[in-house]
Amino acid sequence: MAEKVETPEPKTPRLTRRRLLAGAASGVGALVLKASAAPLSGEKASEDRPVVTHDTTKMQGTPPSELGERSRFEKPRRRVTKPEPSASSTTPLEDLEGIITPADLHFERHHGGVPEIDPERWRLLIHGMVDRPTVFSLDDLKRFPRRSRICFIECSGNGSRGYKEMNPETSPQVMDGLTSTSDWIGVPLALVFREVGVKPEAQWFLAESQDAAMMTRSIPIAKAWDDAMIVYGQNGEALRPEQGYPARLLLPGWEGNSQVKWLRRLELSDRPFMTREETSKYTDPLADCTARLFSFELDAKSLITFPAYPKVLPQKGWWEITGIAWTGRGKITRVEISTDGGRVWQDATLEEPVLPKCHTRFRYFWNWTGRESVLMSRATDETGYVQPTTEAIRKARGVGTHYHFNNIRAWRVKRGGTVVLEVV
Amino acid sequence: MAEKVETPEPKTPRLTRRRLLAGAASGVGALVLKASAAPLSGEKASEDRPVVTHDTTKMQGTPPSELGERSRFEKPRRRVTKPEPSASSTTPLEDLEGIITPADLHFERHHGGVPEIDPERWRLLIHGMVDRPTVFSLDDLKRFPRRSRICFIECSGNGSRGYKEMNPETSPQVMDGLTSTSDWIGVPLALVFREVGVKPEAQWFLAESQDAAMMTRSIPIAKAWDDAMIVYGQNGEALRPEQGYPARLLLPGWEGNSQVKWLRRLELSDRPFMTREETSKYTDPLADCTARLFSFELDAKSLITFPAYPKVLPQKGWWEITGIAWTGRGKITRVEISTDGGRVWQDATLEEPVLPKCHTRFRYFWNWTGRESVLMSRATDETGYVQPTTEAIRKARGVGTHYHFNNIRAWRVKRGGTVVLEVV
Repeated sequence: MAEKVETPEPKTPRLTRRRLLAGAASGVGALVLKASAAPLSGEKASEDRPVVTHDTTKMQGTPPSELGERSRFEKPRRRVTKPEPSASSTTPLEDLEGIITPADLHFERHHGGVPEIDPERWRLLIHGMVDRPTVFSLDDLKRFPRRSRICFIECSGNGSRGYKEMNPETSPQVMDGLTSTSDWIGVPLALVFREVGVKPEAQWFLAESQDAAMMTRSIPIAKAWDDAMIVYGQNGEALRPEQGYPARLLLPGWEGNSQVKWLRRLELSDRPFMTREETSKYTDPLADCTARLFSFELDAKSLITFPAYPKVLPQKGWWEITGIAWTGRGKITRVEISTDGGRVWQDATLEEPVLPKCHTRFRYFWNWTGRESVLMSRATDETGYVQPTTEAIRKARGVGTHYHFNNIRAWRVKRGGTVVLEVV
Repeated sequence: MAEKVETPEPKTPRLTRRRLLAGAASGVGALVLKASAAPLSGEKASEDRPVVTHDTTKMQGTPPSELGERSRFEKPRRRVTKPEPSASSTTPLEDLEGIITPADLHFERHHGGVPEIDPERWRLLIHGMVDRPTVFSLDDLKRFPRRSRICFIECSGNGSRGYKEMNPETSPQVMDGLTSTSDWIGVPLALVFREVGVKPEAQWFLAESQDAAMMTRSIPIAKAWDDAMIVYGQNGEALRPEQGYPARLLLPGWEGNSQVKWLRRLELSDRPFMTREETSKYTDPLADCTARLFSFELDAKSLITFPAYPKVLPQKGWWEITGIAWTGRGKITRVEISTDGGRVWQDATLEEPVLPKCHTRFRYFWNWTGRESVLMSRATDETGYVQPTTEAIRKARGVGTHYHFNNIRAWRVKRGGTVVLEVV
């Protein structure tokens, strides 16, 4: 990649330190302002933009504080999709880099609003086909050996704007903002289940939430023996209220809805419970009139977050195409980029660390000639599964489904640099 | 480890769902409260503790929001060590888990307060022994290929309370809270240096800050060709003001002070500049009356964050000893735990991902018999370097030094469960 770095436009050469430091708004300062690359369009309007007039080297700054705040120039925000409680808010994927989602920007999806729960009064009942029905306090759970795991959670319904109701003026946040990655901390569910003694006939368990929707889902017990956790921590500190405080189920790689938040009860059984949320909802009607139930694992998916609507490329030349890829089935092994609508594909660079069931950052350095171009990304995971085209998923499922939209997304870069979602 | 999990005390068996869900404050509810493990002592007083009285399953919760907030029950805070601007604040290590430090809890250390800088007016001058002296805007820097890297930054002076002025009533935050880990995003310095054309005779560069202290440090140019970066992102979003917004130098594994924040100038030279901050300060006077200059790389270190002052173990039995280990010289390869003051050492588990020059979480499951015990951790890194005893460092450096305290720390668990720093 290094060889390609003729990138930035020629700068102002022969500028001495004295000349630079002398002028902020006049002379060289103005020249520098003019010479620098134009800021990307599509940014928020700047009416309430702070103004800093003083020379920061001549004036004491702010003293240390108990809790940091963002710069007043930075305002990343979730986008609230509906104002009522049974709603969601999306992560601003196009404003983020790396793989960790700041906790206050993690997407939300809940069906009865965010309950407030006193952690000292919180209890988890585990019963049904177990030897010792047990009630755990949060302190009890924290006595077990801990584990932390960096992985994504994606809402089962994420991506519908990339599959149906497509609109050219759709941003990554609007299209796919119901996915986020955190460092989750808690106890492996297997340890808790061994503590209560699971009877041999138990094959499923019900997870029930303490929210107003009393969300309930049935989970195959094999997931508990594999990598399920009860987590009480997120990005180093306590779980956030919107993510299930004080404790939630974590099922790495599975659809978000099954990872029940505000957990209060696990009931073991020899069969699934067939709750509303796994029969009426979170099931894919297929084109052949059958239905896909209990799909759980999310298939490989990727998304270019730059360049993407509403950003505008101000000039031709080298630009880094970047985005995230993820799969519920292990590690992402490859992301390919096409800049010509899918005819030629080139490998993007996967940034370390590449972790299983985790957002993986990809990067591809692209020399934009100024011609109209259609950018696509295509992920492959360690099972060999390749992210399918929209056409392929539509053929398999029809357009009646509300979940599991992992089809390839495309962005059209127009002459002039405008970027829009390619409607297919 | 799984075999050991007889851990939690016997719970209340034979509790039916009906009985649990029926009583919150009476009957079974009270029984459950009594039966659960006692909360750890040493927590903050609870005068302003929120009260939640309603049944959360019967009442709509809070609707989605643009920016999340912590639960009102959780109040992690940095500790401000001095009120005036030239001061610091420490990360609450004992309140954190995993390896990522939330951005608003990242430690602070600055010598002239936190400057407020308009990112559109920010400029970086690179000059001196280069072919093309150049001024870069932030947008210019963002045109280069990006990289994100999860690594720690530790203040050079971190840990003095674990070396001198030792006090039994010292918490991990007070002793070693000037270290934090983030996912940093930016451009490799090597790419920027190739862009300006470094002259062959250039061997060092000066990094200068735009803060009121105009912090300046000399850095060997080899670090630029290795892994130095100019970073503008932290944990997915923009760098925080206290960490150098809009851009800072990142020198993975090197002492914090050299990773100049609020960067405004890099000057290349054939020799170090011998600034105040690398001669008068950030140098170790040695016991033999010579001085250790430009040490930069931080040696392997580890710290048990639980159990530690001011936490109190409420009962004997199985407890997870956990903490963090890190080294400026690559990966941590081993952390050993002693529970008897250093006579017997056992390997702790290192939690994945183990990343180079990054906090690494270690865990060790310990059955406390109730006897007085001295807990120690000892880190080894991939160079084979083993974290030394306090005695060994004192012998090499004397007690006059203010920096680079990576000696082994010890916590004394007293009968009754009180934990204090072992003063040596």
